[in-house]
Amino acid sequence: MLNMIFNQYSFNVRYVETDKMGIVHHSNYYIWFELSRDEFIKSINLNYKELEDMGIMMPLVESSCKYILPAYYGDTIRITTYIKELTAAKLLFYYEVRRNDDDRIIAEGSTTQVFVNNNFKIINLKKNFPKLLEKLGGKWVAK
Amino acid sequence: MLNMIFNQYSFNVRYVETDKMGIVHHSNYYIWFELSRDEFIKSINLNYKELEDMGIMMPLVESSCKYILPAYYGDTIRITTYIKELTAAKLLFYYEVRRNDDDRIIAEGSTTQVFVNNNFKIINLKKNFPKLLEKLGGKWVAK
Amino acid sequence: MLNMIFNQYSFNVRYVETDKMGIVHHSNYYIWFELSRDEFIKSINLNYKELEDMGIMMPLVESSCKYILPAYYGDTIRITTYIKELTAAKLLFYYEVRRNDDDRIIAEGSTTQVFVNNNFKIINLKKNFPKLLEKLGGKWVAK
Amino acid sequence: MLNMIFNQYSFNVRYVETDKMGIVHHSNYYIWFELSRDEFIKSINLNYKELEDMGIMMPLVESSCKYILPAYYGDTIRITTYIKELTAAKLLFYYEVRRNDDDRIIAEGSTTQVFVNNNFKIINLKKNFPKLLEKLGGKWVAK
Repeated sequence: MLNMIFNQYSFNVRYVETDKMGIVHHSNYYIWFELSRDEFIKSINLNYKELEDMGIMMPLVESSCKYILPAYYGDTIRITTYIKELTAAKLLFYYEVRRNDDDRIIAEGSTTQVFVNNNFKIINLKKNFPKLLEKLGGKWVAK
Repeated sequence: MLNMIFNQYSFNVRYVETDKMGIVHHSNYYIWFELSRDEFIKSINLNYKELEDMGIMMPLVESSCKYILPAYYGDTIRITTYIKELTAAKLLFYYEVRRNDDDRIIAEGSTTQVFVNNNFKIINLKKNFPKLLEKLGGKWVAK
Repeated sequence: MLNMIFNQYSFNVRYVETDKMGIVHHSNYYIWFELSRDEFIKSINLNYKELEDMGIMMPLVESSCKYILPAYYGDTIRITTYIKELTAAKLLFYYEVRRNDDDRIIAEGSTTQVFVNNNFKIINLKKNFPKLLEKLGGKWVAK
Repeated sequence: MLNMIFNQYSFNVRYVETDKMGIVHHSNYYIWFELSRDEFIKSINLNYKELEDMGIMMPLVESSCKYILPAYYGDTIRITTYIKELTAAKLLFYYEVRRNDDDRIIAEGSTTQVFVNNNFKIINLKKNFPKLLEKLGGKWVAK
């Protein structure tokens, strides 16, 4: 784990994200994860839009979240994003969600994505985009 | 206005639609309008998906809403949808939003859509899809 | 499992739920689960709004979803909701998501909720609302 | 108009905001307006959360948007927010939405909010919070 690559992304809770309990509705965490993935990918000089232009899409096959403490409107949230697993066929991200004020972990989550083409057929990155996999692997996976 | 065609669509307010004020967040009304349009279009034996398959998309160029009374989680909402204007190039819907319990009007809105092809170029329905316009006009416009 | 209680809820995919891949964005499944829970609770003559009026809120502590096949605009979706676990402190729902057309399972999910009061303190249902737990347990839990 | 106060707020289009047309779904502009209001209010050293803590809520009574050009995933959007009208009872914001790349105006919108207390009764700011109105007026309204 010594060489683990990660990215941190901060943002403020939006009013629209709250519900009548006065806290952030649980579905929004999955959108926060998406934003954090985007920032992670940018941080290694890739771009999700460019991947799509190359004909690579990355739909989710699994997602999960553990909600530990509520998040409130106005909170500054900081998400640390790691790659937990990367193979020629799929990519698993892990997210740690903290509230900036007290630095407490308020949630943890994960998503698994597969690489597909525009017809939603699984792409083998190793076979079809070896340089991309190398780039990802070289930077993402702990030695 | 005697022959005005309209459609009514009812649904329950979702928990996720509320915000920390305890009422429905104003942005959701525009999604309700979209659902009501969909139901209107089905009610005259058209289908928005089929229009898209024919290469016709209908992006919005204007939308507006007047919020009169708040809507709450659990409320049953009934939206009456009318066509206010239909030309070869655009379509203007009007929406009246009522709370079922007391039948009070809680909001009113409107949307204007244009007909475009897959490249977002304006389509003239009269020239390119005369039968569709006829179908729409014959049923939608008050004599 | 012979006496398992379940509820089925059907609805159509909304346009707004799609993303630029042309399929339903994964975050919406969690909203579908919420709707399905609501319908489940109504089906046993409870009402989430009434629970809140009694001072009982049910925030999520965990959620997960496995996405098997994409869902498209216009699809009719049918979700079967089960209680997988019910204790004095928490409630675990399981969801099976099918596309009506071909009856294929397109996703599976689960959520875990805890019972809290308006100050987000855990409520022990057995101690504070024994009749409610009995009602839930009597109807929900397989013998 | 010489002393017009305004605020600019920039952000990137989110994947989840797109729909199957490949462009941003129209309902999201109203959420963008909310974010832009928030930033405006912060820019004059107020805080929406603090207003709520003082017992002042600002629900919308009207909103509208004119969509001029589509917005795409990855676009950097810049919204300029102005106060168009401020009275003791209501507040009207105007929003100009530009795409950063080519600086073209892609949308324009407006919202009208009223000041209410926790019971949704209209508050007269002049009578009940004169210093707040002064602060707003002193900074917001063109001489």
